[in-house]
Amino acid sequence: MWLCPISNQVAGLRVLYSGMESSTGLAHTGLLTDLYELNMAYAYWKAGMQDVRAVFDLFFRNNPCDNGFSVASGLADAIDYIVNWHFSEEDLAYLKDVYPYDERFLDLLRSIRFTGDVRAIEEGSVVFPGEPLMRVTAPLMQAQLLESALLSLVNHQTLIATKAARMVEAAGNSGAVIEFGLRRAHGPQAGTYGARAAYVGGAAGTSNVLAGKLYGIPISGTHAHSFVQSFSSEIEAFRVFAREFPTSCTLLIDTYDTLNSGLPHAITVFKEQKEAIGDQFSNFAVRLDSGDLAYLSKECRQRLDAAGLKEARIIASNDLDEYVIRDLLAQGARIDGWGVGTSLITSRQCPALGGVYKLVAIEKEGQFVPRIKISENAAKIVTPGVKKVVRFSAIKDRLPLVDLIMLEDEPIPTRSFEAFDPLYPWKRKMVSDFEPRSLHQEIFRAGELVYAIPELVKTRQYSLEQRALFPAEVRRLVNPHEYHVDLSQKLWDLRENTINQTTQHRPQV
Amino acid sequence: MWLCPISNQVAGLRVLYSGMESSTGLAHTGLLTDLYELNMAYAYWKAGMQDVRAVFDLFFRNNPCDNGFSVASGLADAIDYIVNWHFSEEDLAYLKDVYPYDERFLDLLRSIRFTGDVRAIEEGSVVFPGEPLMRVTAPLMQAQLLESALLSLVNHQTLIATKAARMVEAAGNSGAVIEFGLRRAHGPQAGTYGARAAYVGGAAGTSNVLAGKLYGIPISGTHAHSFVQSFSSEIEAFRVFAREFPTSCTLLIDTYDTLNSGLPHAITVFKEQKEAIGDQFSNFAVRLDSGDLAYLSKECRQRLDAAGLKEARIIASNDLDEYVIRDLLAQGARIDGWGVGTSLITSRQCPALGGVYKLVAIEKEGQFVPRIKISENAAKIVTPGVKKVVRFSAIKDRLPLVDLIMLEDEPIPTRSFEAFDPLYPWKRKMVSDFEPRSLHQEIFRAGELVYAIPELVKTRQYSLEQRALFPAEVRRLVNPHEYHVDLSQKLWDLRENTINQTTQHRPQV
Repeated sequence: MWLCPISNQVAGLRVLYSGMESSTGLAHTGLLTDLYELNMAYAYWKAGMQDVRAVFDLFFRNNPCDNGFSVASGLADAIDYIVNWHFSEEDLAYLKDVYPYDERFLDLLRSIRFTGDVRAIEEGSVVFPGEPLMRVTAPLMQAQLLESALLSLVNHQTLIATKAARMVEAAGNSGAVIEFGLRRAHGPQAGTYGARAAYVGGAAGTSNVLAGKLYGIPISGTHAHSFVQSFSSEIEAFRVFAREFPTSCTLLIDTYDTLNSGLPHAITVFKEQKEAIGDQFSNFAVRLDSGDLAYLSKECRQRLDAAGLKEARIIASNDLDEYVIRDLLAQGARIDGWGVGTSLITSRQCPALGGVYKLVAIEKEGQFVPRIKISENAAKIVTPGVKKVVRFSAIKDRLPLVDLIMLEDEPIPTRSFEAFDPLYPWKRKMVSDFEPRSLHQEIFRAGELVYAIPELVKTRQYSLEQRALFPAEVRRLVNPHEYHVDLSQKLWDLRENTINQTTQHRPQV
Repeated sequence: MWLCPISNQVAGLRVLYSGMESSTGLAHTGLLTDLYELNMAYAYWKAGMQDVRAVFDLFFRNNPCDNGFSVASGLADAIDYIVNWHFSEEDLAYLKDVYPYDERFLDLLRSIRFTGDVRAIEEGSVVFPGEPLMRVTAPLMQAQLLESALLSLVNHQTLIATKAARMVEAAGNSGAVIEFGLRRAHGPQAGTYGARAAYVGGAAGTSNVLAGKLYGIPISGTHAHSFVQSFSSEIEAFRVFAREFPTSCTLLIDTYDTLNSGLPHAITVFKEQKEAIGDQFSNFAVRLDSGDLAYLSKECRQRLDAAGLKEARIIASNDLDEYVIRDLLAQGARIDGWGVGTSLITSRQCPALGGVYKLVAIEKEGQFVPRIKISENAAKIVTPGVKKVVRFSAIKDRLPLVDLIMLEDEPIPTRSFEAFDPLYPWKRKMVSDFEPRSLHQEIFRAGELVYAIPELVKTRQYSLEQRALFPAEVRRLVNPHEYHVDLSQKLWDLRENTINQTTQHRPQV
């Protein structure tokens, strides 16, 4: 069972990540933060509050692209950042240069290490708005300083994993979705972490060679138009390419004219190669990169079949996204593989996940006291308290019934309970015959990493399996059915009381 | 004159970038590429073509967000990548593992270094669709292998610089635009390179401390809601913060209730501090982060003025973008500074620049022969040949009149010429009384870096100055006037001839 947390030394993790820092270069400096985190840390320290323990929830309020769910990702890099988090002498010199911080504060930063607890929902999990993806319990100053980097990592990777899940959903059984977007990513690292997240979300591979090396993701590639142009004829280019890549040969056929030049040349070369080396010539395909992909793919399929090349596959690229994939398939396109670039690696229609990191409790006299932020917008009020997330699934078919956000110390119902909508609490429903599962795993305990990051291929598999348990209505690309995430009665009461207390103490001016 | 290229050793550049690799961790591995680049390189090598010299243009076809222009950015990181580009033993072992590449090919990669020429348009420049931002002339294999990383860097940074320029345009003289988006960026590196690009595009600063250290960008920060919540009262939190940051104190006033709690508490604390330390308490502001910013800012202005705090500034944040900034100002909002997060760092409405890297000429018998890619879409046909970009500006007021893409060896007109639209060549216009300026600078000559990267503050200044020369109509946020980028007659003829030759040689099947 690969999900089991094991006790692990920090040194162990570093081995797990060997080469990562130097290769993709995730910086671990504490300067990877917004200035306000440092300024708050300074003010806390000056007020003697730096070691007051606080609880922060990392969660988002809306699924990307109005999807029916999101796919959690980014935890491995968040762990890596926390484990290696530090301020170098150079960093401290810079800080000294920009503001007259007290030397003793800089000394504190010099030796700072994470000493808190983290619980989190595992990568690949199906998650919903309001569910704490991470819960950080730590001295106020540490928890605050980590905010920006954790948000940046989790927001980005959860976004791309979710976008990939949408494309995989659209492609259905037609063929694999391959991530092709490095050149349009927000820099090379966004392309590399994005390739990882896309794989978590169900993409079958990537064109990004570095992502292949770092994460063991299958890599995939054809050739460019420039390759065809570099030879004096298209057929010569195809012959050279097919000769060198006999076991994985995809020819791009639209450099000059798809049906009148590219396709007939590809057919000629495929036949020559089959004649020359027989079964050694395997796994070959044409790639369409312009024109109407529904029409062209059907034409290609027909002509390839007629030429006795039924095993030849047809790969499509060119500004694909989940909507185009869905519509092409609805029109009978004969496409066996989808190379998706810009729309996946930038999540083009929804390029940001608005994850936030909110204080939900703070220690007063040895007890955690719930904290809340009141907003003009009721939906933006933060649910206070130290919480866990439990998914209740039907015993008979594992169908997820409802997620419940509960107080950490509340017992999990085992037989039945009444669920209700936190915004419309009169909407109530009895839930029974379920199997509950707590989604939070323990990641750090008193600063020690106690979680083993699963192999990425297993995270991807887990994600695909989990998604398959949800009804198709929740997975619909547009206007999906809303899966219920409710609050326990106890948590709902706490939230109401905290709101009332907080607004009663508001000064009237 | 800071633009002058100077001869510079590669070692010199590394000093310029000292700390950069380790801090933001731009990976320089040759694996930061799409697999198809490697596969093409392999096929070229097997065909004995790896050293054939080729010319690639890096350009884009549309301005982001339908802006009237774009702001070039990313060149410094492209230079850094080229200078440090290499394949490590670990990289080669990985390649050997994924495909049975010939050992001699891997040996070639082991020792590969860039030996070609690069010309490019400087960062901060105003650029337009079709203009080659970079022109790489190099052995085919090298030029091909560099494609993905160069595109990723230039696409990302040009995108963000352009988005920043739009926000700066919208803000006008009202106040500075500050980049606040690290937490919503596509990972920490996208946040850091993005902060740099935003500064190139005219943002006045960033909240990202690492970007401040690496690039010398002014950093800026206030405090979060959690800071207020961590204290037993809002006014206590404000007092602590104002005491610690007397010279740059911005108080966030919407944690509980902007006008009934936050603002009166801020006024009380500002007055206390002025009384206590007089002029030492300077540069203070309130920050609005929710609610209607037009209404709230006007109310705040009135009450701050009435309290004798005319010098207090009002900073706004909360999902701002250029459209919101423009509309708030149109409604008389009294805002003196704009903290822009998600929409800037992800270029939310247009999160990708579709820059491409196209073969335009290849060496045959010692001559560069133009190459072209025909497309079903006429606007996507690539202009062949070895080209330069010249901007013609009016002598009398420096107003840019037209950009001309010309063949490299064509003389630049000095007195007058007839410009014509490349898509509608009957639209013609005489241009005279101009000062021409060639936009390409020499960056690499035979593999040697011959360009000194300007200080970033000067690049930003240059960008602001250049943009101010263009008419307001070109800078309009929506439906701007289209600035003309024409082809020289000679280049237009070459393009037509190449199209005709290429289509004549198309096989008829």
